[in-house]
Amino acid sequence: MIESMEMEEKLQQFNEDTERIIELLDNRSYFKAKEEILKHNEVDIAEILEEVLEQLGIEKTIIIFRMLPKDTSVEVFSYLPTDDQLAIIDGITDKETAYIIKELDFDDMIDVLEELPANIVDKILEKTPKEERKLINTYLNYPETSAGSLMTPDYIGLKSGMTCREALNLIKEIGNDTETVYTCYVKGKTRTLEGIVSLRSLIVSDENTPITEIMNDSDYVYVNVYDDQEEVAETFLKYGFLAIPVVDNEHKLVGIITVDDIMDVIEEEATEDIERMAGVMDDSDTEYLDMGVFRHARNRLPWLLFMTVTLMLTGFILTAFEEVLSQVIILVSYLPLLMGTGGNVGTQAASLIIRGMSVGDLETRDALKVLWKEFRVSVVIGLVLSIFNFTKIILIDGQSVMIALTVAVSMLCIVSFGKLLGSMLPIGAKRIGIDPALMATPMIQSISDMVSSTLYMLIAAVFLGITL
Amino acid sequence: MIESMEMEEKLQQFNEDTERIIELLDNRSYFKAKEEILKHNEVDIAEILEEVLEQLGIEKTIIIFRMLPKDTSVEVFSYLPTDDQLAIIDGITDKETAYIIKELDFDDMIDVLEELPANIVDKILEKTPKEERKLINTYLNYPETSAGSLMTPDYIGLKSGMTCREALNLIKEIGNDTETVYTCYVKGKTRTLEGIVSLRSLIVSDENTPITEIMNDSDYVYVNVYDDQEEVAETFLKYGFLAIPVVDNEHKLVGIITVDDIMDVIEEEATEDIERMAGVMDDSDTEYLDMGVFRHARNRLPWLLFMTVTLMLTGFILTAFEEVLSQVIILVSYLPLLMGTGGNVGTQAASLIIRGMSVGDLETRDALKVLWKEFRVSVVIGLVLSIFNFTKIILIDGQSVMIALTVAVSMLCIVSFGKLLGSMLPIGAKRIGIDPALMATPMIQSISDMVSSTLYMLIAAVFLGITL
Repeated sequence: MIESMEMEEKLQQFNEDTERIIELLDNRSYFKAKEEILKHNEVDIAEILEEVLEQLGIEKTIIIFRMLPKDTSVEVFSYLPTDDQLAIIDGITDKETAYIIKELDFDDMIDVLEELPANIVDKILEKTPKEERKLINTYLNYPETSAGSLMTPDYIGLKSGMTCREALNLIKEIGNDTETVYTCYVKGKTRTLEGIVSLRSLIVSDENTPITEIMNDSDYVYVNVYDDQEEVAETFLKYGFLAIPVVDNEHKLVGIITVDDIMDVIEEEATEDIERMAGVMDDSDTEYLDMGVFRHARNRLPWLLFMTVTLMLTGFILTAFEEVLSQVIILVSYLPLLMGTGGNVGTQAASLIIRGMSVGDLETRDALKVLWKEFRVSVVIGLVLSIFNFTKIILIDGQSVMIALTVAVSMLCIVSFGKLLGSMLPIGAKRIGIDPALMATPMIQSISDMVSSTLYMLIAAVFLGITL
Repeated sequence: MIESMEMEEKLQQFNEDTERIIELLDNRSYFKAKEEILKHNEVDIAEILEEVLEQLGIEKTIIIFRMLPKDTSVEVFSYLPTDDQLAIIDGITDKETAYIIKELDFDDMIDVLEELPANIVDKILEKTPKEERKLINTYLNYPETSAGSLMTPDYIGLKSGMTCREALNLIKEIGNDTETVYTCYVKGKTRTLEGIVSLRSLIVSDENTPITEIMNDSDYVYVNVYDDQEEVAETFLKYGFLAIPVVDNEHKLVGIITVDDIMDVIEEEATEDIERMAGVMDDSDTEYLDMGVFRHARNRLPWLLFMTVTLMLTGFILTAFEEVLSQVIILVSYLPLLMGTGGNVGTQAASLIIRGMSVGDLETRDALKVLWKEFRVSVVIGLVLSIFNFTKIILIDGQSVMIALTVAVSMLCIVSFGKLLGSMLPIGAKRIGIDPALMATPMIQSISDMVSSTLYMLIAAVFLGITL
């Protein structure tokens, strides 16, 4: 039994174990390494193999992978990141690959097959029974981020005529091969979903009760096979289920999605949001350190180049007001303050709105409410910042009242504009079907920069009486 | 049965239903409203009540809440946001409150009690049996973001001498009152956790098998009652469990945490990260629209004021180089480009690193690897941007080679600095125990602005031969 200790200590222990195993492998003490590695559970073994692959390369990884008991090796394989799975498949024989693929849970198998080159998939499917091949092909055809791509056909399907005893016997018989036994699905004659029943109610009910009496046939929740995974995740979050049935357009049951697959989706979607909000265009699940330098650069350059162009425009605008700037050069020193603040207030608003829409707190129809709220917030914030700066420019910088007023009034306008931009851009994007997360930092900063500098220069020209 | 239809249509249908119910309530057709409302499940009823509360106020909400069947009303209550729960408690009698609190699942009860004013809690606890009162007080004392605050004592605890049949009989007896029956926990004499056993294996095993034979007593996963909820969430994500046992320092079982409570934590933590990265200091779970204007302003002002100060410093720096700027005023027009790009490349790097650390892909000990990777990425990106700008400044702007060179070389330095800052600041923060998410956009933008303008002015002075 693992001794009770704090998370940190556990982690450290695990790191030490991993290092020892790598050392053993490096010294070719394979059997000792195997013995050490088998002290861990499958999830942890997968992590150890990741480290082995990174530090010692694929050959040693294959050696130790082949030494694992067959059942263990299949489960470990299912926990490896896709890149590592492909590396291992590349290094083992076709026969071994076929064995692993066959033994994987159905949804894990689909995930692997989706990533494999077509010729290897064909080779594997050749040896699969016709019925299963058909099912696999159907699954492979669902869009990558749809409910269909997350589901598994390994569920307990009950017939509507069964009693609780019959249902429990069926679970006893096939329960070991299904993803979950805790919710069972009652199907009618044409495979239509008629209701769901929990193992809990099967157990606590009298064994002669017909399952139709205890099943939920009215307000159970399900998703359509083409629903987007983000919507599926929202459904799970809202109801807190362990599994949700997936139906096609005729309400036929085609599979189920379990909560463990959804937790990954919740995290992936949050990561995607965060990356997009920061102007990183990454459509893979590759971990930071596993991604190559050029791939990293390619993910980040599109927004940077876009920004370069808009920042150049801001430069042009400033050049157009050269007259103002050269007459009152001190204005330049407040430029970073005004442009920076505009971008920051916009980014704050955008993040709140984007996140609110992501988790379902906000809808596009709330646009007016948001606009009204952000307007009032911007007045409060704008006033605080304007007064603060006005006082500071006069008392500390010793500038004239007109200069201080120019900056203060510009600040108020820029904060209001930034907040409105930051709140409306994401909502507008969602309305026309673009991911709102794209309307975050880079986009807002660049638009705000252009508008801020124009406003500032115009206000300066008016207040300081400079003819343009 | 809900007819099969797309998510969007379902949502629209639900909104229409909600509006009809609100209309009925507004016209005092209470019984019709009740009839309509009871067509929905408890989660949806809670959403409808939220709308009623927002649109019609607390009095009508209380009326319809009281008309719900008692069981339904308790469950609906558990799905309401904390603010709405408090509003309802405020509007009903103490007796009704005590009833609801008593009937809630234990972990939901703790959540509500934590938010209630102390005098109401005392009143409720007065009527609670002594043993339960003690348990409640223990639970109320765990830190708000610890495993202890997420757990529930409603689990199936088996004794190590039981057979599968005895275990199943116990589940049949008490299974309706527990959070989950799908994993059972085997306890020794002093309440120490000896192993876990799944309902699945209890069912598929022979009924005379002792549970100690089929339980997992070696590599099951558990958390300590004082572990942080973020670590607990990482554990769930890693292993994909439905429930995890919580033990104290003597390995005594004190409760379990179920996956539905963890999904909320995963989402909350991502939201907190995103808000902090954008410079919003919000420590509540209040939804965007439910939060007041001044609260919004207060959450956003600290970073804005901090930024104001650093942006002022940037202004001072520019003033110090007034000589350079006034001699070659065209340099001002490239200032936004250089400062903006520095902030952007830093923000990109910081987001990737912060997220990587949040989801456990990166550790502080990876600092050198990250530094090396970001340095190479910054060279690639810096070169692309420098060459692009150099060409553009000469060909399109028609400026001299020395001006173009000034901007290009500054760009290269600023990109490298931005990337290093964006990657090292979050790692450094984590190392000294500060939330890395605080080291995102505002912090990076402000430091980068100061360094960018200094570098740019110095390089300009050297290249253009201006004496400072």
